[in-house]
Amino acid sequence: MTGINKNKQNLKELIDTNDFVEHVSVDCVIFGFHKDTLKVLLLKYHDLDLWSVPGGFIFNDENLNDAAARTLYERTHLSDVFLEQFYTFGDIKRTENNTHQKLLENKNIEVDKNHWIYQRFISVGYCALIDYTLTYTFPDSFNEVCQWFNISELPNMAFDHKEMIEKGLLYLRKNIDYQVMGSNLLPDKFTMKELQHLYEAILGEPLRRNNFQRKILSMNILERLEKHFTGSANKAPYLYRFLEGSEIKQSDFDK
Amino acid sequence: MTGINKNKQNLKELIDTNDFVEHVSVDCVIFGFHKDTLKVLLLKYHDLDLWSVPGGFIFNDENLNDAAARTLYERTHLSDVFLEQFYTFGDIKRTENNTHQKLLENKNIEVDKNHWIYQRFISVGYCALIDYTLTYTFPDSFNEVCQWFNISELPNMAFDHKEMIEKGLLYLRKNIDYQVMGSNLLPDKFTMKELQHLYEAILGEPLRRNNFQRKILSMNILERLEKHFTGSANKAPYLYRFLEGSEIKQSDFDK
Repeated sequence: MTGINKNKQNLKELIDTNDFVEHVSVDCVIFGFHKDTLKVLLLKYHDLDLWSVPGGFIFNDENLNDAAARTLYERTHLSDVFLEQFYTFGDIKRTENNTHQKLLENKNIEVDKNHWIYQRFISVGYCALIDYTLTYTFPDSFNEVCQWFNISELPNMAFDHKEMIEKGLLYLRKNIDYQVMGSNLLPDKFTMKELQHLYEAILGEPLRRNNFQRKILSMNILERLEKHFTGSANKAPYLYRFLEGSEIKQSDFDK
Repeated sequence: MTGINKNKQNLKELIDTNDFVEHVSVDCVIFGFHKDTLKVLLLKYHDLDLWSVPGGFIFNDENLNDAAARTLYERTHLSDVFLEQFYTFGDIKRTENNTHQKLLENKNIEVDKNHWIYQRFISVGYCALIDYTLTYTFPDSFNEVCQWFNISELPNMAFDHKEMIEKGLLYLRKNIDYQVMGSNLLPDKFTMKELQHLYEAILGEPLRRNNFQRKILSMNILERLEKHFTGSANKAPYLYRFLEGSEIKQSDFDK
């Protein structure tokens, strides 16, 4: 993967470089699933009550999709995860609030007013699905905190990032099949109840237990394993795992 | 629609302007349907045996999606048609063959070697569905011919435009529902056979007549009209039309 180790931690160095494709950025809506809730990974800007999805610029010698993978890697240290383009955001007004200028002023970094960082950006939106239990998060030089939020309880968002998350979720609902969502968002072994809760969280509506179970079992994508014994035994549920070959990281469309 | 009348016909003027967002372009894969065949609208570059899908740049004061609509309008003089983003193409190598340089040299237009037109472009791909019978085509100052091609018989394509058309077709198959495809690609009235041939052309495989007819009628999206009498009467087929409200020009996702 080109450029994966190119993270420039020094903000001033990042701004002064001519290494980036100007006017274009990538942004990653990173979905995780924890305690029956669908979550997104957000960054808080230094000294501003403003959050954003992890994003970055594209090096001149880097493929667009590799820039998205690098951005994801820099925030999670995970590679080889499900990552797919879903929409490119290019309204004139999307960067009008000049968040970059406020950030740089807060850090007392002087940048020429005509610098590309102050101009319009067209941003390519990606959505990533990651196993929440595997994840540690890493803020960058623009940001002080990197944190998971419930999709229904988002904080104050920068740019058009609220709309980005909404569109990313719509994309997930419409385009990603059950198997891909489950195998990327859940741990290796899970109960039928956990799987159902995942799909309910993504669809934003309850599913009937019997219907769900019948439908998912008829798809022949699950392998039934041992029983899941916790403290209260007796009616312990079975654990399941996706059958070999079902851990699709990338849809056919993106190959 | 912003910028729809901004077509700069003069090539030199277009190149010298500072009005565009540098390093970004839009490209439109325009699908039409004629004589049982799915077609795309292509442009031939001046003095080069090289064709491309209609594309253009984005004015600084123009929304990305409006730039795509303008590009489509400039080549077809059609507005308010189905037009949807499907993928953003950003590999480093996609513009390496320097088609722009050859074009400008052919026209004896001198442009500084460091001009953005010679640099890398990230291109946002759109697909459009238009009624072939309504269309007249209009070349621009880069191109001498604007012509329909069968998707299975493409000429020598510039940049990564062959891949663009393939991805556009995959997108059509996977994401656009039957009703949207039919109501945008067919004339107002059509026979069941014509409708079946359209879906076969898009899917690239034959469908069983009885199954197809049963499925499409069960969707309750068609209105049956008068019989379609041609020369040989007797077994004249019925004409159909999509029911009111079914002419969806844009998917929910793109709103």
